[in-house]
Amino acid sequence: MENQTITVNNGVNIEALLGAREALTAAPEAAQFKWRANSEWVNGTHTRSSVEKFFGLGEEQSHRQTFIYDTDHPEIFASEDKGATPVEMVLVGLSGCLGAGIATVAQNRGIQIRSVKTTLEAGMDLAGILGIDGDVRNGFDGIRVQYEIDADATEDEIRAVVAQSQKRSAVYDIITNPTDVWVDVRKSS
Amino acid sequence: MENQTITVNNGVNIEALLGAREALTAAPEAAQFKWRANSEWVNGTHTRSSVEKFFGLGEEQSHRQTFIYDTDHPEIFASEDKGATPVEMVLVGLSGCLGAGIATVAQNRGIQIRSVKTTLEAGMDLAGILGIDGDVRNGFDGIRVQYEIDADATEDEIRAVVAQSQKRSAVYDIITNPTDVWVDVRKSS
Repeated sequence: MENQTITVNNGVNIEALLGAREALTAAPEAAQFKWRANSEWVNGTHTRSSVEKFFGLGEEQSHRQTFIYDTDHPEIFASEDKGATPVEMVLVGLSGCLGAGIATVAQNRGIQIRSVKTTLEAGMDLAGILGIDGDVRNGFDGIRVQYEIDADATEDEIRAVVAQSQKRSAVYDIITNPTDVWVDVRKSS
Repeated sequence: MENQTITVNNGVNIEALLGAREALTAAPEAAQFKWRANSEWVNGTHTRSSVEKFFGLGEEQSHRQTFIYDTDHPEIFASEDKGATPVEMVLVGLSGCLGAGIATVAQNRGIQIRSVKTTLEAGMDLAGILGIDGDVRNGFDGIRVQYEIDADATEDEIRAVVAQSQKRSAVYDIITNPTDVWVDVRKSS
């Protein structure tokens, strides 16, 4: 086992994460993060959002660069298709969150990951957002995530890694449980 | 009012959307959509997702291009910061969905929108995802969305537009209500 642990490299710095867990256990206020995005409406259903600053470890933090994301509706909705739809962005977030967890949990368990391929599919009945049927929800009727994972482990061990990733995933939690959203509106000129 | 309606142009084709609502009321199976993303793990906490195909109006559909999104963790988590964090992607999706709704509802109400500036902020206690405290959730403790909207309307009318956008938003629904996620894992080689 020791040899295996030494040679496993999923690109995750487990020592740093375990150190962070220890440090944040001792200083819980440093664990209070604030994640942000800023957006400007461009035209029609097209919005441009930027992600750069966040707060954590007791102070303002910044990504190495500003990330810009366009969202829009596709042409079949009479839109210009300048980016993924907002609901597809949620799938991107879910996949990224579970994927980071899989690499991290596997590293912690001494399992070398070779590849992770994921397909996500979410059904939606447009009768909700179009106001056709008040009994149909606006959002997804569920999300199916299918993993094909090549790793130095049994299928059961791989399943256990994925399950632990779900258990610790922020986006999985946000999607599967209710989160409050407070909206404040000010007229500008 | 008729003059106002004629001159309002938020870049939203309301006639097409009202036509779609009528058509999908008559043919409910065409309203069944499936949204998708495909991802590959790159290294560490870095995942690359692509968005291109979806299903709707009874057949396979495609965006005009494949949209590629990288997600990662920032450097303070010992990661390489190759993209926004997955939770920030959720904020991008929420903002894009509400923004599309605001332009659409305003168009339908004959309200010219001049600008929409949005700041989103979501708190998260890392004691959840780091496994420090089992009583702390992994996801956001809530999301604050602040709008500054310049539009040809009173502040109350603008607030009503935003409220209606929330009422019809898919991502707002996904975040504020529970959505099932089914995960299937297969070992590949």
